[in-house]
Amino acid sequence: MSEIEIVAEQRSFGGVQGFYRHVSETCGGPMRFAVYQPPQAATRACPVLYFLAGLTCTEETATIKAGAQRMAAELGLVLVMPDTSPRDTGIGGATGDWEFGEGAGFYVDATVAPWSARFRMHSYVVDELPALLARQFPVDLARSGICGHSMGGHGALTIALKHPQRYRSVSAFAPIVAPTQVPWGHKALPRYLGDDPAAWAAYDACELVREHSFDGEILIDQGEADKFLAEQLRPELFDQACAESGQALRLRRHAGYDHSYYFIASFIEDHLRHHARALEA
Amino acid sequence: MSEIEIVAEQRSFGGVQGFYRHVSETCGGPMRFAVYQPPQAATRACPVLYFLAGLTCTEETATIKAGAQRMAAELGLVLVMPDTSPRDTGIGGATGDWEFGEGAGFYVDATVAPWSARFRMHSYVVDELPALLARQFPVDLARSGICGHSMGGHGALTIALKHPQRYRSVSAFAPIVAPTQVPWGHKALPRYLGDDPAAWAAYDACELVREHSFDGEILIDQGEADKFLAEQLRPELFDQACAESGQALRLRRHAGYDHSYYFIASFIEDHLRHHARALEA
Repeated sequence: MSEIEIVAEQRSFGGVQGFYRHVSETCGGPMRFAVYQPPQAATRACPVLYFLAGLTCTEETATIKAGAQRMAAELGLVLVMPDTSPRDTGIGGATGDWEFGEGAGFYVDATVAPWSARFRMHSYVVDELPALLARQFPVDLARSGICGHSMGGHGALTIALKHPQRYRSVSAFAPIVAPTQVPWGHKALPRYLGDDPAAWAAYDACELVREHSFDGEILIDQGEADKFLAEQLRPELFDQACAESGQALRLRRHAGYDHSYYFIASFIEDHLRHHARALEA
Repeated sequence: MSEIEIVAEQRSFGGVQGFYRHVSETCGGPMRFAVYQPPQAATRACPVLYFLAGLTCTEETATIKAGAQRMAAELGLVLVMPDTSPRDTGIGGATGDWEFGEGAGFYVDATVAPWSARFRMHSYVVDELPALLARQFPVDLARSGICGHSMGGHGALTIALKHPQRYRSVSAFAPIVAPTQVPWGHKALPRYLGDDPAAWAAYDACELVREHSFDGEILIDQGEADKFLAEQLRPELFDQACAESGQALRLRRHAGYDHSYYFIASFIEDHLRHHARALEA
């Protein structure tokens, strides 16, 4: 039996949009993810762009709503959309709250029981999933980029800053940049990571960018009509942290745009081109 | 009070993606629809493209999945996505069957009770909705085109053929072209229209094209991996009817593509350009 189960594969922009399931060692159970293979993947290994989704989302959300396949087909990028957490964990308290647990893995490796047995999205995205992709898909992992939205923007930024050798490019839409300073982080991080603020700081982009740097400009798009902007997202904190540490950042603010995938779809082409420039080099 | 209720309005590709509700006289109750206003609509009346969705769909389906806003913004087209039927009709048998009733209005004016009181999607799309748009949105109805998918492709073709003076362009994805000859039509048309086959023929594109003509080429895209192709869609029947009656038709068959919005999204740009050529003229 193959190590991945094909849930569905459908033709899209001359390539293949697939949904897959496999048993994850890292997350201790089944995980789902989506992969778009552009037409170029039929004949050669292609660079990879991960897209990490936000709270409440699944591997389907960006796949259906972001409209990324068109440019991925044009640029020859494989798109990888993981689910945002393990599912059907059976852990008490893992469902019923959209800001914590299933659908809200925050791309951390939980260290507190019972979450530590299953909620290990950081290692899953950084290690296990790429290794699986390398065995099952025509990917050139030496050319990988990472992008995300909201909680997934936090994931993309923290992962890229912690593992700059693994990714050539990083970008985010409306990311959580300072979880140690905002309600979403205050709620989730102690439950996943315990009471030591140092453990939270290891997953805070504003903290990480003071110690680490990313070789290349970070691209962030933010809508100014985003209802989470002032309380949860606070891009000015990352702007300031990057300025102080010398990290190149291009932060674009867009009047009238909200937190939705209508915003993401409007600018996804710019992000794919940003990544393609780094990945094709 | 305004005659339309704004459900939501969100910035998209420099324009506005809106969802609206109003009380329809034609359909005897509340109806929902979506309108995308491109950036150009801020300063002038723009041409309109209707997109009619298929079985089980709502005004949200193509809005979210087709990826049409990008080209609509570039070409300056207003997109109008109606719901596929009235909802919450309370009519016995109107729910629970995806091929008939709510979500399956087939773009006919029902003549058989109890359906005739509410299921009048043909007149709703042709008359009431355009009149409402003209009062509430910056549209130039003299420049209207119509497109649809599956049951909505049937709607687009039959409406355009019955009212060629109202539309300058028509196209369809995987349309039902001969409902009088396929199971979907055999199931729905008698319940909406009664037992006289002549009444069904008035909503059959293959029949209509023998008596009517459309000034301009009809564009149809069809996926060859569409599971409904052989039994329900049968585009060869329309191809033959157009050939026999001298109607210009461009029927494109695409290997590997199925019936889904991944197929639609892959070719939506071609359809919007097809309409824009006719509407900007």
